[in-house]
Amino acid sequence: MNREKSALQIARAAYQPRLPKALRAGNIRVEFGAPTAPATHAEDIKKLFPDTFGQPVAKIVEGDCNLNSAPLKVGVVLSGGQAPGGHNVIAGLFDALKAANPATSVYGFLKGPGGCMKGKYKELTNEIIDEYRNTGGFDMIMSGRDKIEKPEDLAACLENFAEMGLDGLVVIGGDDSNTNAAVLAEYLKAQNSKTRIIGVPKTIDGDMKNEQIEASFGFDTAVKTYSELIGNICRDATSAVKYWHFIRLMGRAASHVGLECALQTHPNICLISEEIQEKGTTLQEIVDYIADIVVKRAAAGKNYGVLVVPEGLVEFISDIKVMIDELSNILGKDEKFIHELGDHSERVQYLSGQLADHSARVYSSLPEDIQEVLLKRDSHGNVPLSQVETERLLMDLVHDKIKHLKSKGETEAKFSSLGHFFGYEGRCAFPTNFDADYCYSLGYGAAQLVRADLTGYTVNVQNLTKSSDEWVAGGTPVTMMLNMEMRKGRPTPVIKKALVEMDGKPFKFFAANRDEWAINDCYMFPGAIQYFGPSEVCDAPTKTLLLEKGGCESGG
Amino acid sequence: MNREKSALQIARAAYQPRLPKALRAGNIRVEFGAPTAPATHAEDIKKLFPDTFGQPVAKIVEGDCNLNSAPLKVGVVLSGGQAPGGHNVIAGLFDALKAANPATSVYGFLKGPGGCMKGKYKELTNEIIDEYRNTGGFDMIMSGRDKIEKPEDLAACLENFAEMGLDGLVVIGGDDSNTNAAVLAEYLKAQNSKTRIIGVPKTIDGDMKNEQIEASFGFDTAVKTYSELIGNICRDATSAVKYWHFIRLMGRAASHVGLECALQTHPNICLISEEIQEKGTTLQEIVDYIADIVVKRAAAGKNYGVLVVPEGLVEFISDIKVMIDELSNILGKDEKFIHELGDHSERVQYLSGQLADHSARVYSSLPEDIQEVLLKRDSHGNVPLSQVETERLLMDLVHDKIKHLKSKGETEAKFSSLGHFFGYEGRCAFPTNFDADYCYSLGYGAAQLVRADLTGYTVNVQNLTKSSDEWVAGGTPVTMMLNMEMRKGRPTPVIKKALVEMDGKPFKFFAANRDEWAINDCYMFPGAIQYFGPSEVCDAPTKTLLLEKGGCESGG
Repeated sequence: MNREKSALQIARAAYQPRLPKALRAGNIRVEFGAPTAPATHAEDIKKLFPDTFGQPVAKIVEGDCNLNSAPLKVGVVLSGGQAPGGHNVIAGLFDALKAANPATSVYGFLKGPGGCMKGKYKELTNEIIDEYRNTGGFDMIMSGRDKIEKPEDLAACLENFAEMGLDGLVVIGGDDSNTNAAVLAEYLKAQNSKTRIIGVPKTIDGDMKNEQIEASFGFDTAVKTYSELIGNICRDATSAVKYWHFIRLMGRAASHVGLECALQTHPNICLISEEIQEKGTTLQEIVDYIADIVVKRAAAGKNYGVLVVPEGLVEFISDIKVMIDELSNILGKDEKFIHELGDHSERVQYLSGQLADHSARVYSSLPEDIQEVLLKRDSHGNVPLSQVETERLLMDLVHDKIKHLKSKGETEAKFSSLGHFFGYEGRCAFPTNFDADYCYSLGYGAAQLVRADLTGYTVNVQNLTKSSDEWVAGGTPVTMMLNMEMRKGRPTPVIKKALVEMDGKPFKFFAANRDEWAINDCYMFPGAIQYFGPSEVCDAPTKTLLLEKGGCESGG
Repeated sequence: MNREKSALQIARAAYQPRLPKALRAGNIRVEFGAPTAPATHAEDIKKLFPDTFGQPVAKIVEGDCNLNSAPLKVGVVLSGGQAPGGHNVIAGLFDALKAANPATSVYGFLKGPGGCMKGKYKELTNEIIDEYRNTGGFDMIMSGRDKIEKPEDLAACLENFAEMGLDGLVVIGGDDSNTNAAVLAEYLKAQNSKTRIIGVPKTIDGDMKNEQIEASFGFDTAVKTYSELIGNICRDATSAVKYWHFIRLMGRAASHVGLECALQTHPNICLISEEIQEKGTTLQEIVDYIADIVVKRAAAGKNYGVLVVPEGLVEFISDIKVMIDELSNILGKDEKFIHELGDHSERVQYLSGQLADHSARVYSSLPEDIQEVLLKRDSHGNVPLSQVETERLLMDLVHDKIKHLKSKGETEAKFSSLGHFFGYEGRCAFPTNFDADYCYSLGYGAAQLVRADLTGYTVNVQNLTKSSDEWVAGGTPVTMMLNMEMRKGRPTPVIKKALVEMDGKPFKFFAANRDEWAINDCYMFPGAIQYFGPSEVCDAPTKTLLLEKGGCESGG
């Protein structure tokens, strides 16, 4: 622990996160609304969650305390990918529990849910917590991707928690982890375990949100880190005036990260997977769209630009999806034969004969290295689409298209492109003031839900576009957020992933401006995340949140 | 100009850069030292620069003004790659010249030195300057890589400058651009032109520095931007505990960027090209060194880590250099034949027969895609080593080595690696307070050198580890910094590039600590560049500068 620290580490350690007024009160109580039900599949879900179905929404308010103030034993676990602010959730939880009763113990399970199953944990002390206040990363107790799903996993947790005498467990994770938390809550309740389970909404992807949960934590910091870099690259593009930068961003299922970055930086092109899926856009149409903008900008003397693309894009392109399905079938039958074929061109030739006409055309249009990647299959037997570097695929195809147009004399565009990928850079940044405050409040709120003896809830903090004073913390029964979806071939209860909505204000604002951003240089330069300056620089929430909740039409 | 701006853009526009005390004075004078001479090749250089050789060092002090206060016409041009603070050089130049005489005109040549030769420029106004104060990038007047070298280039400048009635030109560029500025200065003086030439030391690579020039501008901001990202990735590594991150950094000739980032973040491994060249380290030795640390960390339960490598590394590895020379010779004779060979394995087989034993072994040890890259030749007939993605080469070779060790039962290391490249992200960041102040002072100083009727000088600001009040501005005759080096086969006067010195304090500090950093997790997290917070967070110079000039042993 005796490591040298940067000046910012030292300065940020002293930051005291802001709490909602009700959470700062000496007297805290939890109040309840009417029983709840999920929007769809209520009967199915009720059957699966007989003991935790229908619980009321909880709200944490100032007033006569109705919470448990006895000494408790509470665990906390980090599940899945890193998101800035995780340490502040733990700090908020710790501070709130110790404030309620200094004899309460807090345990951190190590390396994710696997730590719960294996009974690997450490007690968290003031000294440990202080070391990590307002820092990024999950290194305090580390994270992991194990899932507590199988009967033996649940039983292992039951046994470990009983041995520890655990009153509650706070699970910090995304939609899947919160779903699993609900399953664990139901199981423990049915087994008469005293361990209560509370989830915390975490993911930089921003796709765990709904009426009750305004934002997942970490999104704010991650998108601002990426926006800093994209803005810097926009400035580079318009200074060097000779490169097109194709920037791939982390985020597989939803395009919230790309959309927010576009709202922050105004790149010339931003592709939104949800729109491409909804419209059934083909790969060629995407390439044509990009090439058209490259040509138009070139005609205006601008042989440079910036494109932003979510890493998951290819999985949403209609004809790629069809081709991948066909390819999977062919590989399922002929994999060995195909890999024994003499060389690459023989493989392409063979596959072109097997694929349907359009799929064959799509496959042969792909660069050689991507053609080869698609002939592999991962451990689940799937074609590893995630290994396709989307930005390089597009660079390659646009390059060919421009070359073709030039050969016909239809453009004089010069197309030199550079690829970038931003992901790991943003998952562990120092949390913004917003995420630092929000996470601390989530942790502080989670402590009250544990004290209220609730289980199967996800903690929430609402009113996030207002000052933190006006934030309101509470709890949402997880069953209320569930719906049934097909997973591994069978209907499974899951929290519905929030995708970018075509009629949502963030997308509509983007769609209304993108043609102008495409041709003119409307780049914005957000710069590095600031912690100490004017409030409008340091404390603004994301444009997405402002547009969704703030009633602000410009996100500004 | 009516673009939407980010909150930080607006806040930074109001920042007033700090000037050295002497430059703030109402009365400024320039004083001179004794005549100067270069450290080596004095006679050769004197012959090439008869009219500008031997000029004295200039120092700008407070005192009775001995400078031209008539209205002047002064041009400015940006040369080469972007570096944060370029706009502040121009702002400082503009403010100083307008303060001396409001009737003075300042012209920005467009898209680099090509703008001087083509006579493409625009007059800079208060409105334009205000738009770009304290911003990153070179987009105010853009940059370019043309060189004013050939007789007709020089003549074109002479003619354009005469037509404009230009009294002075400030050339903002790196070592080559400052050398070319000296050639232009000599030429114009010999032609009795009244246009004086002053250079400004710019490059994020940090390799234009010497006794007179303590730092090139932009280095501070760029390395801090990269260090932010590397620190975030270190945090990610120690949170996810399952990846080795191999990070390539911009910087071809010198490793100052990598070294400074290592001092800021304490990665497990940082390779320094200069050391590898000096020691004659082979590729296999580098791979062994990395693999050894991977194995040792794995034995301590740490299957993760962070490695930093300068992009130019491969050009400094002894046996790669030999192999490339041999390969160039073979390609010179047999290129067509080689490319007509049926496939990759035939090419490797043929080349292995042609190369000397050790080179053949090195070549066959390389990954297939890199073997193919090395069979191409660029427009100068050189093997395009710069296209080799150094981090991927090392990831691949270390992966093979670990696999081999595992097969022999010598390690149980798990080696999953991820590659990153940081370069364009940092060239156009908002300048740090240091670069904002330093650049503004450089521009302000350059204005005084023009007013002093000096030519063939590079402006400098010294004492940079002290408060800006104590900074001292002046000018260094470029001929004093020249030496003769072989370029394109003939002796050419150039400013000597500053490489990382094995007996310099920054490298020695690194070398004394790297074994500890390799095994233990000593990561530092610098975080995002701050502009508004406590001085120790916002105003610290680089660790390199502190170690070199500050007499501080820890760089802290």
